[in-house]
Amino acid sequence: MRIDIITVLPELLKSPFEASILKRAIDKKLVEIHLHNLRDYSIGNYKQVDDYQFGGGAGMVLMIEPIDKCISKLKAQREYDEVIYMTPDGETLNQGISNEISLKKNIIILCGHYKGVDQRVRDLFITKEISIGDYVLSGGELAAAVFCDSLIRLLPGVLNDETSALTDTFQDNLLAPPVYTRPSNYKGIKVPEILLSGNFPSIEKWREDKALERTTKKRPDLLN
Amino acid sequence: MRIDIITVLPELLKSPFEASILKRAIDKKLVEIHLHNLRDYSIGNYKQVDDYQFGGGAGMVLMIEPIDKCISKLKAQREYDEVIYMTPDGETLNQGISNEISLKKNIIILCGHYKGVDQRVRDLFITKEISIGDYVLSGGELAAAVFCDSLIRLLPGVLNDETSALTDTFQDNLLAPPVYTRPSNYKGIKVPEILLSGNFPSIEKWREDKALERTTKKRPDLLN
Repeated sequence: MRIDIITVLPELLKSPFEASILKRAIDKKLVEIHLHNLRDYSIGNYKQVDDYQFGGGAGMVLMIEPIDKCISKLKAQREYDEVIYMTPDGETLNQGISNEISLKKNIIILCGHYKGVDQRVRDLFITKEISIGDYVLSGGELAAAVFCDSLIRLLPGVLNDETSALTDTFQDNLLAPPVYTRPSNYKGIKVPEILLSGNFPSIEKWREDKALERTTKKRPDLLN
Repeated sequence: MRIDIITVLPELLKSPFEASILKRAIDKKLVEIHLHNLRDYSIGNYKQVDDYQFGGGAGMVLMIEPIDKCISKLKAQREYDEVIYMTPDGETLNQGISNEISLKKNIIILCGHYKGVDQRVRDLFITKEISIGDYVLSGGELAAAVFCDSLIRLLPGVLNDETSALTDTFQDNLLAPPVYTRPSNYKGIKVPEILLSGNFPSIEKWREDKALERTTKKRPDLLN
């Protein structure tokens, strides 16, 4: 999978891709991440990429021309399956969307910043608008990092043990059951005895019960 | 506001706090971010912080003892309003939660990793569990960065123009209206004429109509 990220703040996206699972996925060539600085496509001597909004009001808006130039250049080089805009008014991301997009070959992710992008960018170039949740961020960069993380960990070979992603919360519409590790007794607080029993069918049953109990209590909406 | 973040991957959180609005907020001393490497509180010569889960199954679990040591040390130094665990089975973050938590003085954020933390950590130390959305990430670090961003931009003095945050999507349960900037005509595609009219009451009315129209179409659930 190849992901091209267009942003005014590539430096913000540096460390998330240089650590842990995402770094290993890149090193193993299971995914390519290309950061594009929108300022490299800016207009005039001032490297302008944003301007005041028409009609007045607070906040700057990313201009259409630099974005058009960047997306057009990328599209001239290869076919893209999706051009995705990270925005709080997009479709709310869930595990199903991540599963689906993780099967794509080439995607572009455009990060908004300030008040967002000129609406004509969305009308002309964007094939999918994604929100990571109902809250506002300073820009689309962290949202893009979150989205990439959710995608990349699903790519075959990225996680050491493939069952690890399959038993995650949401993959079966249930929250995960509680987990415990050593010591079995910490300052008098013990782990549930069943987990130490070695009786794996009973442990499996206990986990299913706990997953259902937790989902019913915390997120009954997932069960519908 | 002071935010203490406990993580096994502090390096992942580096660049998000070194750029743009979050960096300026830190430089202006409007917020303090302290990253704590859980490995500094590890057990034994191997700097162990995680172990296999009791009962078998894929994925490692963060141990209770290093987390207890770290949280206890912080709590001995000052009072904390909340000890928050980032987890996909927590309460789903929304703008209202961010507004509320942004009023707190001191908070601890614990990032899960791998399969999560020993359930006893959640039972004993955590006062609030927050999920940034219904998808699974490699760890809680990016979720913590997202959460911090949503909080910090609300702190007085962080945004240059305070109206900028107040007119954001979600603050009034409406999605934001479309925005446009120069040029008014880009390759034949023009911005709506009303925005160039200088008639500010009409522009305000147009924006309200568009915000309602967009919300009705994309997110009718927000209107209830």
